[in-house]
Amino acid sequence: MDADTNNMPTPLRRWHEIVRDRDLSGLHGLLAEDARFHSPIVHRPQVGRVVTAMYLSAACQVLLNDSFRYVREVVSGRNAVLEFLVEIDGIEINGVDMIRWNESGRIDDFKVMIRPLKAIELIHRKMREMLAASTGA
Amino acid sequence: MDADTNNMPTPLRRWHEIVRDRDLSGLHGLLAEDARFHSPIVHRPQVGRVVTAMYLSAACQVLLNDSFRYVREVVSGRNAVLEFLVEIDGIEINGVDMIRWNESGRIDDFKVMIRPLKAIELIHRKMREMLAASTGA
Repeated sequence: MDADTNNMPTPLRRWHEIVRDRDLSGLHGLLAEDARFHSPIVHRPQVGRVVTAMYLSAACQVLLNDSFRYVREVVSGRNAVLEFLVEIDGIEINGVDMIRWNESGRIDDFKVMIRPLKAIELIHRKMREMLAASTGA
Repeated sequence: MDADTNNMPTPLRRWHEIVRDRDLSGLHGLLAEDARFHSPIVHRPQVGRVVTAMYLSAACQVLLNDSFRYVREVVSGRNAVLEFLVEIDGIEINGVDMIRWNESGRIDDFKVMIRPLKAIELIHRKMREMLAASTGA
């Protein structure tokens, strides 16, 4: 669906603009200093704005091809759950972005879950390649 | 958290009662005839009330130990996303129940996603054992 961003909480509207425009330049300013990123792969969260932005950028580079779309949006209070579908390498990936923001409208918690198992395994491989490339590891 | 069920939509309140009481007897009546279950493991949904009830029962038997608790609840319209934590065999499992109900208040779509990868692999094994036992396979 095309998100109707008019009546959305501001942080959620800004996240949708980042995804729609494939433009990550506003990402850092949207994150709280103590933002945490919880990946679908690893238990331990990534802590802090810089590392959260790095992981979200890598996730965007892996996931945001032309087939990416949000298909369900559940929002209440300062929490949003955005369900997405995307096809990569012939595999359909179904996931959720679970986004929470603080009272200042900065995202302080971003969690991603993915199904089915085959999709997680693919994303695991892609993220590893992406992060290895970006850190020169 | 202990869910405050007073102001909840009826199907959601009934789901919480099933989980709280570990009593699946009301499950069949809560599901729509055309209910679908989407597992964290397999792409293809399970279709129909009987098979959905079977998968949800197996999932409850695997997941509902004493450490199970819901930690975030995002509800709007006829959709709810309930985030849970549970520890099984020393592994912390973080997941969501994504529940949608129809205009008659029957659940017609139930999707589960789980993170991290290690937790999915554990649940994959447990569910396989459970379903094999219940079908005599």
